[in-house]
Amino acid sequence: MTTDWGAEAARRLTRLAACSEPGPGVTRLPFTPEHRAALDLLTGWMQQAGLVPSLDDAGTLVGRLEGPEGAGTFYLGSHQDSVREGGAYDGIMGVVLPILALEKLRQEGVTLPFAVEVLAFADEEGVRFPTALIGSRALAGTFDPAVLDMTDADGIPLRAALTGFGLDPDRIPELQRPRQAALGYLEAHIEQGPVLEAEGEALGAVTAICGIERHQITVTGETGHAGTLPMQGRRDALVGAAALVTEVNRLARATPELRGTVGALTVQPNVVNAVPREVRMTAEFRAPQDATREAAGAALHRFAATLAERHRLTIDIARSYAQPAQPCDPALSDSLRAAIRAGGGSGRALPSGATHDASAMADLCPIAMLFLRCRDGISHNPREYAAPADLGRGVAVLAALLTRL
Amino acid sequence: MTTDWGAEAARRLTRLAACSEPGPGVTRLPFTPEHRAALDLLTGWMQQAGLVPSLDDAGTLVGRLEGPEGAGTFYLGSHQDSVREGGAYDGIMGVVLPILALEKLRQEGVTLPFAVEVLAFADEEGVRFPTALIGSRALAGTFDPAVLDMTDADGIPLRAALTGFGLDPDRIPELQRPRQAALGYLEAHIEQGPVLEAEGEALGAVTAICGIERHQITVTGETGHAGTLPMQGRRDALVGAAALVTEVNRLARATPELRGTVGALTVQPNVVNAVPREVRMTAEFRAPQDATREAAGAALHRFAATLAERHRLTIDIARSYAQPAQPCDPALSDSLRAAIRAGGGSGRALPSGATHDASAMADLCPIAMLFLRCRDGISHNPREYAAPADLGRGVAVLAALLTRL
Repeated sequence: MTTDWGAEAARRLTRLAACSEPGPGVTRLPFTPEHRAALDLLTGWMQQAGLVPSLDDAGTLVGRLEGPEGAGTFYLGSHQDSVREGGAYDGIMGVVLPILALEKLRQEGVTLPFAVEVLAFADEEGVRFPTALIGSRALAGTFDPAVLDMTDADGIPLRAALTGFGLDPDRIPELQRPRQAALGYLEAHIEQGPVLEAEGEALGAVTAICGIERHQITVTGETGHAGTLPMQGRRDALVGAAALVTEVNRLARATPELRGTVGALTVQPNVVNAVPREVRMTAEFRAPQDATREAAGAALHRFAATLAERHRLTIDIARSYAQPAQPCDPALSDSLRAAIRAGGGSGRALPSGATHDASAMADLCPIAMLFLRCRDGISHNPREYAAPADLGRGVAVLAALLTRL
Repeated sequence: MTTDWGAEAARRLTRLAACSEPGPGVTRLPFTPEHRAALDLLTGWMQQAGLVPSLDDAGTLVGRLEGPEGAGTFYLGSHQDSVREGGAYDGIMGVVLPILALEKLRQEGVTLPFAVEVLAFADEEGVRFPTALIGSRALAGTFDPAVLDMTDADGIPLRAALTGFGLDPDRIPELQRPRQAALGYLEAHIEQGPVLEAEGEALGAVTAICGIERHQITVTGETGHAGTLPMQGRRDALVGAAALVTEVNRLARATPELRGTVGALTVQPNVVNAVPREVRMTAEFRAPQDATREAAGAALHRFAATLAERHRLTIDIARSYAQPAQPCDPALSDSLRAAIRAGGGSGRALPSGATHDASAMADLCPIAMLFLRCRDGISHNPREYAAPADLGRGVAVLAALLTRL
């Protein structure tokens, strides 16, 4: 009897989805009873695949398959946590698939010429604490102990959450892996976008994790009575803000691979019969090439300066956040695309607009990412879905890739 | 010794401004101790001018100067109430100036060939109760008793507020004045806009009180991750809303005497890294000509339909409120302009973008409005200010107008 790996992956993801706070979809925050329940399931499946599971002091469940002495370790994994009322695939699927891939290789009697670790990171979404990527940063040696003092909404410090989970936060710095022994990191993740589905492709290889920059913008004009203030004398903050929204969208549509979004915007005083005095808004750009993104940010600043003068507005615009793009390793990604093609796919290459644990793991070793199509491009939502057949394709490609390295 | 009427008006307005809840500026809501304190002052000044004061059951303080039998009554006045943290001029100045004008005529020994009533309406701003113009509608016979059941923020019904003020709400319908005896109504008010100040004119005559229409707009698109959703597939509600804001402003600037404002706008989910799913916003048009305003509303609806199709958005747009323009009486306004010119002004004619008690009084008799310039066009604000010299010009023009009728 041959195993239907896709159906098995779907079954396991359904069981993991039950490790959730009550309510719609999946809510599984780090260092909670739901996290513990998920780890218990994963631990059993790791053992079944021949992996030796252990929980490290950052809350990462590590399933290790020993390899020849000195041959180094290849890493696969993703995060176990979800957003609030999220779905059953984002993150956790990237833990389930490599466990099955290793079980498949074991069934097939394949022995790899290196060690493998499957990693289930505690926290990537940053929902519970105002930080993220604790587990992957610990392995890469970029963990900042200052975040241990950050608190969740109940006032519980991260340090206390770790201790309460049976971990020793003071030993996190010891988790750093030696670079010379780290062969690479591969993360499987749903695309969270519509590209693969639109092209009829089950799988894709990520070219780069997009860099991000965010701008905080305050447009200040002058309020007044909407009836008594003639148009000519107006300094309407919302009219200025509308021009900025239009420009962010125009820039992004005119520039290949650039994404631009004004996601948040609030108006003061925000009443029907008053000219808006102030608008506070955000603008975000993402691109796989830093130069593309930075040019867009600079263009927006120039546009704002001209606009402010033309409309007699004050526009404060400041870049509040910037994270460089993280290119995937060309050689590792080529191997991944070859494995996808061998499985019947086209080996579509596409950027990742979202950040992943792979961003942090890139400080340790070469990274690659396998994207699976998801229905309607939806993620962070109970409707998140990837088909069992595609999960099966993912298991097969991961197994094939490991044998190709 | 001649009286400095402007200085006296300023002194009285300062004393009235003290009839306020504690806090910045003036907060004087109807049927409150502050209202009572203002009425006590006004009552004394009415008596000093030879008027007979009485409080009617809608809370209007009426100061009557008898005239010859059957000669009819000319009305002057405005409202005593302010917005929260408003100024010392809006409304109440239109009560103070005609009292002084009648005192001036009395000093000069002038006897008018008709009766005069100075009216201090309780409520025009509509701040305490979700209705307004109670006093002027009562006189015009358009008072709707259903509003007596409306409640303020503390749950007090208007009926109880009136009773608590010593009034009998059931007798309000009896306040209606006979039309044949109503000669006209003149309201003096600060301009609440910058036109007179910009032109160096102290006084102006209103051509019409602008009509108003309001539209409630909901733009619905689809949310998604700002990083993973390519630009091409987006249905960004805020990008659509920005086009509507731009169009309302363009329409109003391109059309003489039209004012167009998007005052309120809220975004969902309103986070930095999510494409906006929904925007709720208002659009308001005002114009002294109904056809101008209605054409703008219709143009906006057509624009929204085209926009919705082009951006694959759903745009619900509904006219939620419409109030026709109220032209001032040409003959009475001509007399007013002649009086302004006689006082050294140009007799500038301009529309009123804001609504006034005069809108309701127009159902009773011919109306006219005298606008006084105010500093920086500011109203509904503690910084509201009109110069004593301009107050004096206002007193003189009102007195002159009464002798011209």
